[in-house]
This record gives sequence, C-alpha cells and structure tokens, in this order.
Amino acid sequence: MTAHLVVLAAGRGTRMESDLPKVLHEIGHAPLFAHALAAGRSLSPERSVLVAGHGAELVRAAAAEIDPEIEIAVQHEQLGTAHAVAQARPFLADAEGDVFILYGDTPFISSGTLDEMAQKRAEGASIVVLGFEAETPGRYGRLVARGDSLERIVEYKDATPEERDITLCNSGVIAADAALLFELVEAVGNDNASGEYYLTDIVAIARARGLDAAVVRCAERETLGINTRGELVRAEALFQEEARARAAQDGAILLAPHTVHLAFDTVIGRDAVVEQMVVFGPGVSVESGARIRAFSHLEGAHVGARAVVGPYARLRPGTELGNDAKIGNFVEIKEAAIGEGAKVNHLSYVGDAEIGNAANLGAGTVTCNYDGVLKHRTSIGARAFIGSSTMLVAPVAIGADAMTASGSVITTDVPDGALAIGRARQVTKPGLARRLVDKLKAAKAARNKDDA
Amino acid sequence: MTAHLVVLAAGRGTRMESDLPKVLHEIGHAPLFAHALAAGRSLSPERSVLVAGHGAELVRAAAAEIDPEIEIAVQHEQLGTAHAVAQARPFLADAEGDVFILYGDTPFISSGTLDEMAQKRAEGASIVVLGFEAETPGRYGRLVARGDSLERIVEYKDATPEERDITLCNSGVIAADAALLFELVEAVGNDNASGEYYLTDIVAIARARGLDAAVVRCAERETLGINTRGELVRAEALFQEEARARAAQDGAILLAPHTVHLAFDTVIGRDAVVEQMVVFGPGVSVESGARIRAFSHLEGAHVGARAVVGPYARLRPGTELGNDAKIGNFVEIKEAAIGEGAKVNHLSYVGDAEIGNAANLGAGTVTCNYDGVLKHRTSIGARAFIGSSTMLVAPVAIGADAMTASGSVITTDVPDGALAIGRARQVTKPGLARRLVDKLKAAKAARNKDDA
Amino acid sequence: MTAHLVVLAAGRGTRMESDLPKVLHEIGHAPLFAHALAAGRSLSPERSVLVAGHGAELVRAAAAEIDPEIEIAVQHEQLGTAHAVAQARPFLADAEGDVFILYGDTPFISSGTLDEMAQKRAEGASIVVLGFEAETPGRYGRLVARGDSLERIVEYKDATPEERDITLCNSGVIAADAALLFELVEAVGNDNASGEYYLTDIVAIARARGLDAAVVRCAERETLGINTRGELVRAEALFQEEARARAAQDGAILLAPHTVHLAFDTVIGRDAVVEQMVVFGPGVSVESGARIRAFSHLEGAHVGARAVVGPYARLRPGTELGNDAKIGNFVEIKEAAIGEGAKVNHLSYVGDAEIGNAANLGAGTVTCNYDGVLKHRTSIGARAFIGSSTMLVAPVAIGADAMTASGSVITTDVPDGALAIGRARQVTKPGLARRLVDKLKAAKAARNKDDA
Repeated sequence: MTAHLVVLAAGRGTRMESDLPKVLHEIGHAPLFAHALAAGRSLSPERSVLVAGHGAELVRAAAAEIDPEIEIAVQHEQLGTAHAVAQARPFLADAEGDVFILYGDTPFISSGTLDEMAQKRAEGASIVVLGFEAETPGRYGRLVARGDSLERIVEYKDATPEERDITLCNSGVIAADAALLFELVEAVGNDNASGEYYLTDIVAIARARGLDAAVVRCAERETLGINTRGELVRAEALFQEEARARAAQDGAILLAPHTVHLAFDTVIGRDAVVEQMVVFGPGVSVESGARIRAFSHLEGAHVGARAVVGPYARLRPGTELGNDAKIGNFVEIKEAAIGEGAKVNHLSYVGDAEIGNAANLGAGTVTCNYDGVLKHRTSIGARAFIGSSTMLVAPVAIGADAMTASGSVITTDVPDGALAIGRARQVTKPGLARRLVDKLKAAKAARNKDDA
Repeated sequence: MTAHLVVLAAGRGTRMESDLPKVLHEIGHAPLFAHALAAGRSLSPERSVLVAGHGAELVRAAAAEIDPEIEIAVQHEQLGTAHAVAQARPFLADAEGDVFILYGDTPFISSGTLDEMAQKRAEGASIVVLGFEAETPGRYGRLVARGDSLERIVEYKDATPEERDITLCNSGVIAADAALLFELVEAVGNDNASGEYYLTDIVAIARARGLDAAVVRCAERETLGINTRGELVRAEALFQEEARARAAQDGAILLAPHTVHLAFDTVIGRDAVVEQMVVFGPGVSVESGARIRAFSHLEGAHVGARAVVGPYARLRPGTELGNDAKIGNFVEIKEAAIGEGAKVNHLSYVGDAEIGNAANLGAGTVTCNYDGVLKHRTSIGARAFIGSSTMLVAPVAIGADAMTASGSVITTDVPDGALAIGRARQVTKPGLARRLVDKLKAAKAARNKDDA
Repeated sequence: MTAHLVVLAAGRGTRMESDLPKVLHEIGHAPLFAHALAAGRSLSPERSVLVAGHGAELVRAAAAEIDPEIEIAVQHEQLGTAHAVAQARPFLADAEGDVFILYGDTPFISSGTLDEMAQKRAEGASIVVLGFEAETPGRYGRLVARGDSLERIVEYKDATPEERDITLCNSGVIAADAALLFELVEAVGNDNASGEYYLTDIVAIARARGLDAAVVRCAERETLGINTRGELVRAEALFQEEARARAAQDGAILLAPHTVHLAFDTVIGRDAVVEQMVVFGPGVSVESGARIRAFSHLEGAHVGARAVVGPYARLRPGTELGNDAKIGNFVEIKEAAIGEGAKVNHLSYVGDAEIGNAANLGAGTVTCNYDGVLKHRTSIGARAFIGSSTMLVAPVAIGADAMTASGSVITTDVPDGALAIGRARQVTKPGLARRLVDKLKAAKAARNKDDA
C-alpha cells in the first residue's frame, strides 16, 4: 500500500538547554529527525511531511539538505500532537494509502517495526499503534489490548490499579488510513487539564465508531525519546554501539571498535580494516579489502577496494578513491577523483581535481584551486609524477607520464611525457652560514644587553 | 575573614614508582598540588604556602609557573604532618585570620566544602576538621562528634570496638585561627610508634584547653588521596568525568564526551560543539557557537564565537582566534592573533603573527619566524590573500588587500593592495619526463643486476 | 632441556566471517599465531613449526616476516589435532628434547606457564598437559588428576556425573618428549563420532603403556581461544588492558591509559610520559623520560631519552630518535636517524636520511627521496639549519653548520658552514592585487549572469 510519513518535529526542547531546535541535535552525524525519516524509507513513502515549529526555518534548511522533496508544515503554536498532525493535512489532503506518524526526537524506531505496522494495516486494522513492554512503565499511557487487538489507550492518571499493572505502553507512533486519520484528528478535543489536543485520543474516537485498532510491539529501546543533553549523549553511545556491531556483522574488521565513530549511513565492505580512532561523517562507503588507518577522518567519500587511507588522512565530500589508491598522512582530499593505484602519500592538499591511474604526488603537493574569488580544477594524467612541493595553479592540466620538478609552481599545462620545471637554480655561498649565525648571535647578545 | 592556605606537598610518593615528586604528577593537565590551590581560591587567600620536601626545587619551579606569589617552605626531613605545618610558620608568623591545611595529593576537595569550613570558623569553632562518611572506614582515624561538635579524633589502632563502628572519618583537612594553629602545632609531641608529629593531635590539645572543635562533612569522593599510579589513573578518569559533566551542564555540546580530554581550567561556551577526540590543555576558552572539530589539540588558546577549529588543528599557547575565524586541517598556530573571519585552512604554520580580518592563507603557508637564533614577527593585513606555499620570512608585513603568488618567498614588506611574487618562471621540456624515467629504470635494472 | 614448538594454525575459522585465515587476524598488532610463538620464546626453542592449512601461503608469508626460521608444515586436510601434529614430524624427525604443542588461535598462554610445564617434564613426567579451573566447565574435556598427576582426560560426552563435577579442564596445550610424542600420535585412531584424530588421546595411550602424565594449572584467561569476531574484539581489549597495566608497572606514565594502543612488543621506559590517543605499532621502544604527545603514531621506531614526539607525529619503521630530539606536529619520519637534540618541529617529511646532532629543520622540509623509480638518501650535518619549505633532492648532503634559505630546492651538496639558496627574488607590483581581485569578481559576476 502507498505510505506517507508525518514526522512531528516542532518542539523547542527546553530541557536540552540549547538555542538549537531539539530535532537538529545530532546522533550518528545526522539530525535526530533524519533518523525517523531513514527508518521510514523502507516504506518507500510517497510524501514526507515534517511538522516544524520552534526554529522552523533552521529545520527547513536542514531537511532540504537531506532530501529536497520533504514538505515542511509549520505549527505556529504548540497545541498538542493532534494539532501538530493537523498541520500536515494540506500536504496530504488528497493522499491515498497509509500515514505513519513518527517523532523527530525518537530516532531508534526500526524499519522492521514500521514494516510490521504496515502489515497490520494491510490485514485490515483501521489504526495501528506501536506499543512496547516497559521495564518501568511509570507514567506512560497503557495499551489495553487483547492479543494484537487494541481496545483503548489509558492515560496513567486515569488508569485503574489493574490498568496500572499493564506493562504494554504507548509509544505514540501510529499508522492509519490517510483520510480517516485527518477525520479523526479533527474530532479530537482539548477538554483536559493541559488544554492540548492529544493524538492518542483518535483511538477512542475510532473505537467509538466501531473501527478496529491493532497493536504492534517493539523493543523498548526503539522508543527511546530524547529530551536532555544526557539522553542525547546516551543515545549517541547506543547508536554507535549498534552501528559498530552492524559493521562487524557485515564483515568489517574494526580493530578497536569503541574508538571508531560511525555515521547513520556508513557502509564498510567485508574484510575492510578500520584501525583505531577513525571518524566517519555522513556519506562514506568503503569497499572490500580497503584499510582505513588510525586517526583518519572521512566525509562524503568513496574508498575503492584495497585502497589504503591514512593514518591522518582526511577525505572530504566529493572524494572518490579508485581501487588500490593510497592516501597517506596529513593529506586532505576534496571533490577529487583519485585514479586506481594513484598515491598521495604525504602532506598534500588535493581539491577540485582528477588524478589519473598510478599517478604519484610527492610530499607537499598543493592544488591551488582558489584564486580568492573563484574555484578552478586541476587534472593530472595517468602515471604522472608530481615532484614534492609542486604548486599546481588551477586551472591546469598535467599530461600522462609527465613530471614536475620538486618545488615548481606550475601555471600552464604540461603535455604528456613532458617535464616541467619552475624553480630557481641553487647558489651556494661558502662560509656564509657561519658568518650569518655569528652576526645573529651578536645581535641577540646586544639585544639582551639593551634589555638588561 | 582573611584566609591563608598551607598545602602539604613534601612527600616523595615512593609508591608512585617514579622519580618525579608525587605532587607534580598531573590530572586535568595540572599538577596535583594545583588542584588543592584552585579549590582554595574561593577563599581569596591572602597568602599561600606550599610545604615542599622531596624534589623541592622542581616543586618550586612548577608552583612559580602557576602563581608566582606562592611561598615555598621546605621541610628537609619528613617528621610528620605537624612538623610539615610548622615549616610554614615563618611565612605566616604575623598572619591574622584562618589557616586552611590542605594536601597536595588530595585534589578533589571542593570550593564549597572549604566555604563551609570557613563558615563554621566564622560561627566560632576554634578548629574545624573536615570529615567524611566512609563506605569502608577500614583503618581511617574516626571523628567522635556530637552533631557538628567534634569531641576528639581517635586513631584506628587506639579505637574501642564502639569507636570502630563510627563511619565518620578524618580527612586531615583542618582550618584554624592562624596564631592558635602554630601554638597548637608546637605542642604536638612524637611519642608514638612511628616517632612522627601528627597534625591531628592538635584537636586533643585544643580540647584539653577547653577550646571548641567542629566538624564539616563532605562526600568521600572529595577526600580521595593519590599514592599510586593506579590511583592517579583513576583520579584522572574521575576528574574527566566530572569536567565533562560540568561542561555539558554549562551548555557545551560534546558529541562523544568520553573521547574529550579537558583541563582543570577549560571553559566552553553555550552551544559550542566539541567533536570526537579533542584534547584541551591548560588555558583554553571557547566562545559560544564555536565548533572544535575532531582530532584537535588546544593549549593556551582563545577561540572566538562561531569560529571553526580543525579537524587536526593545533592551537598552541598565545593563540587568539577572532569570531568566525577558521583554522583547518594540519594547521599549527602559536602566539598569533587571527582576525575575524580569517581563514588558515590547510597545512600551515602560523607563529608570532597578527592576521587581519578576513585574510585568507593558502595551503602550506609558513611564517618563517626563527632564523636559528632569534624569533621575529609577521603581520598580515585585512583581506590579504596569501598564495599556497608562501614563505613569509619574518620580520615582514603584508598590507591589507595585498596578495602573494603561490610558491613565493616573501622577504620584504608588501604594501596594501600590492601583489608580491617571488618564484621562477615555468619551463616545460617536451618528452623529457619519459626519457628520464627510461634512464632511471635502466639504472635500476643495472643496479639489480650488480646486486644479483 | 632442548625445546621445540609446534603451533597448530590450520583452521579456516569459518565463524570469523572473513576470507583471512583465522590465525592471521591480529591482536596487539601481531597475528594471533605470533602470540603463541612469543610465549614459547622463553623456552629458547631450537625449532618452531607452524602447521598451516587454510590460507597456508598467506600464513607462510606472515610467519616469514616475524621469524624467517619458522618451518611451515602444511596440513592439506583437516583431520584433527593429532593429524595436524603428525604433519610437523618431518621437521622434527630427529629432534631431541621436548615438543610443546601450542595453538595459533590461543594467544594468552604465558611464558611462565610454559616454564612450569618444562619444569614438570624435567621432573620426569612423560607427558605434561595444561589444565585450568573453569568457571563454567560446560562441555570442556575434564582432567582426572590426583594432585599434579594426570590419570586421564575424559571428554564431556563420555563423562560420568561425578566426572562432570570436575572443574579442572583441558586446554589442549601439551608438552612431551619429541620421539615419544610422534610415536603416540601415530597410535591415535579416529574411531569416534566425527572421525577425527584427537591429540588428547595420546594421554590414554601413554597411560596404557604405564607412562606418567602430569598436569600444570594456569588461569582460565590464558586459555582463551578465538573463534569469532566478537571474541577477537574482546581479546584485543583484554590484551590492551594487560599491556597497559604492564607498561604502568614498568614505570611508564600513561595519562589516559584506555586511549593508548600498544603492540605486543612495545617497550616504554620509566617516567616516559604517553599522552592521550597514541598508537604503538610493532617494534617500538621508548627510553626513560621521553614524552609521546597526543595523537602520535609510532611503528618500528626507537625514541631516545627525553625526546619529545608529537602531537601528531608519525614515526615509521626505521626511525631512530636520539636523546633530547624533538619531532613536532604533522611530521613523518621513516628510515631515518635523527641526532641528539635535533628538531623537526612542523609539517615535514624526513625519509631515508641521517640528521646530525642539534640540527634544526624548518616547517615544510621535505627529503625528496624518490625519483619515481629509485630511493635515495639525504644527510644533514650537525647544527645545520634547514630553512622552511626546503626541498632536499636526494641524494644530497648538507654539511655541518650549513644553512639553506627557506623555499630553496637543494640539488647539490652544501659544504660545512655554507649557505645555499635556490629561490627567485621577490618582485612587488603596487596595486596589482586590487586590480586582479576586481577582474576576478567581474569574471565571477559575468559567469553567474551566464548561469542565470
């Protein structure tokens, strides 16, 4: 069945003690709301609506970066979850199929769980509510269910002692037919202590109309919501623990897993080795047999099979490493394709460039890609040999099998097989170093005397 | 009331298995004794005396670095705590007000606890002893108290079974009127098994004279003393845990708190983000909204609002980063002021320099500040653009809106708006690279033949 | 008595989910089998035989790197441990003395334990079996012993209820007279459920012949075998924990031990300080009083007394740092001897070089040691001063007390005390920077207009 997502992301998150809207805090290098969206992806949703409120413009910008097709509904006043869902109606007015209500501050709901909810809908339940067996049910709302059939949701304060003994609690996540959902939401009132419109009330309304509701159960861990810095830190730790275990199960070799920091979308191939203290930002994939050495930092990069990265390599977005390529220490790569077996081993900056197969860039190579106003590109041919501390002033092209002499500034193209030199000839002045040092020492002695 | 500090720091720390005097071992990037002094700072002490013994000259040097006004009393023989306090007398002979006796190897006593002790003194107690409820009292001395009134201190070996059931134990920290303290200390004898003069004996002497003693209670954790490497490691871990929690409470965002290493005096502003694996040495402050990226190392540096540091940035003492400045990867800054919005993005060394607002330093920029004998300064004007791999041979000044061509060695000043070039023109020799490689390969083949 | 080692290393390790043979997975930067060999080194073994099977050629190559004298026996079919031992016979046919059977996937057996086994053999036991008191004996084979005398080994499935109550379990590690061992192994049959030849059967055969068997006990921890990724990760954690504790006991100061990664052979001297986040690869020794600063990475390097390394220093194999030498940030050293008190403080690559005492290499120094085909050496004399961004095109020699001007490319030798310059003179063009920027901005505006 067609699915749509509504992610509630309007809260300020006062308890975060931060000026940033709560859902923009990150775990696994993605804002909290992006995790809910990512889980929903398995439903292949037709439309996704983010209900923003506090910091709505910041949320809109962050959402556009993740997926430009996400619609943003703005809830100007925070009048409760049913009211929040109602704001999404204009974007889903004519929608057919199911709407899934997720929460921007609840990042651990799994795809599998949402699939189960979709399945229950397909089996005919008008509304599907996600519940969990709480270890300490405390003040959570309780789900009164017979098997998978949900009778009603009871708020803790209204629950009888028998109902309070129920440990099946309400996560707030709901799936329902789109048209029905908005009809039910409209019927929700705010005649309660806090004067808010509660989404969970739709279950009672639906039941009163004789409609079926069903419950799907997930692990309590999936329903973890984030309201404070402390919870955010614990969520990050939990995310990392799970991501590391997943990577290892997929066949990656993490030498010291607890020192490796993964992003929500990191992909590491079988028998690829990740050494100690590596950071994966978003958008990284590593092919089988590659080795990411210690102290490396990768974002938006693809690492080919058997390539070696680091130690101390920084791959920035737009890096494409060919198979068997080698990026060494204190090297930064950005928006660049590095050919198969090419080497950039030491102390270099390669940006906005194409490097041919088996090319070798010496220590201190810099692509001078920025003239203060515009960015330009550099291309280096296959098997080219770039001497140490060559400045490649872009736009510039070095041919295949070409060489540059170390210390050269290259401003014009170098044809295939040619050697380019741009440096002064060495002059050696006998005895001058000794005389200079003597002079400098005398100057220092004089200065010290003056100071005294 | 006027306060003075006496910090006992004479022990060798044999169990540390180190040639370094015990109190010079560090936690949070400060020697142990400095933590006791820092706690005492809330009392605004008039005089501070460190009683040194083993390695006294090393201790004196370390103390001078932290606060040149600290007095060092040397205890040549270690004859007990009362004897140690007596060594401080010459420095406090005419002192009025309270003396607080702290311990150089006990770094967790809090300011709040010392304030409470001062309060008790203000309320009239002649001597105030700091006690703690021990989880495992073991062989600690016991405090026999009625409410806050201290009757006596009983050594474990002299305690009756009933007294051994007391869980309120003696921390050794004492506050007393200065004149009285030294008078009591003089009265302490050494007629005991180890032949040492014990400071705690002053309580019995005072009580025998009809003076009042009071007890203040603190958490056992505050009284943690350090005697072995293992205890030092655990103390560092405890220090870090508390420092990270404090930073988060103050509104800093630590993405992976347990990978961030803080110093005793690190200050991080609200919503400043600290990524994974960052080391803060002493003397760092970070303004609100700044971002310290992964693998950065900061010491003695101030980071302006919204500035971005790293990954792999090293800020050394004397670094002053303006608001919105950006220091990128593999960049070292030392004794330098970086203007607002200025950028040093890649592979550079900037030392002894002033960089103007919105200046941009290319990859591989080096301030050549040392001629082998003396250090010299570099200044770069606002909006100047320094081409990649420019050597700035100090002393040298680059004007506002000036540029240097990449690969230039700049030895003389460049006026505002001027362009300076110091590099050779490129010469390209067709086919020469191929011929060179052929020659080299032939040489290698010949060499290998010779080796065979 | 003469000793020989047989290390069984033929298993595929299916449960590792890896294409790599199990014994090539690493802990402490050494393949698993190397740990068994290292423990056996205390026996000064005359011959060592590794029985390889799956991936035998990979194992052979790895073994040759560790010790070229190790013999590789190949077990083509995996027919059980007795069959594996039999493959070693050709290499030990005429061997006299004891053979110790170890396991390539059991890296924690200690030297002390093997010494105890050797002692028991010297006291006359024909066979010595290593046992351990298991916390959860589960399905381990049980050792039926009286004191140190071993009566028999009972497989769990054949054990009586009384025998199952025995907690002394079989580690599989065995020592026996060489000739006897192979005779007994030959007598082992495969008349059991799995049709395999079990090494432990030799005890029953020996006992049936009236020979004595003895048991030596070790901690269960020593017998930890590795079969899965999860176990490998836990083994690495255990290895690191023990190695850190050992380093601290030996007097090293690890500021944040859990962030320091040690290799199986790391040696750190008394009062040497290791800061946060340091990786030691194989072959590193650090002398007393040296300081390894944060984010450093060392492999195959010797660090002299009081030398300072890092932060962000990478020492690669063949690095030899003299006393009081200083290697600073973003510096890579490889196959190089750095003299006493010499300094390479910033952003440099020094490979295939000898650096004299008290020489000073400026920021951005590069030894251009590779011409695309061959590697060449650089030598720098005592007290030489290498200006920033000097390219030293090897082979090249810089004399004692010589200097190079910053930004120079040095291609010919520089005599003692001489100054070498290889750079263009600076030319300054007034107003040109401003005009250039105006032009570039105009170009950008035009481009943007075209795009619009």
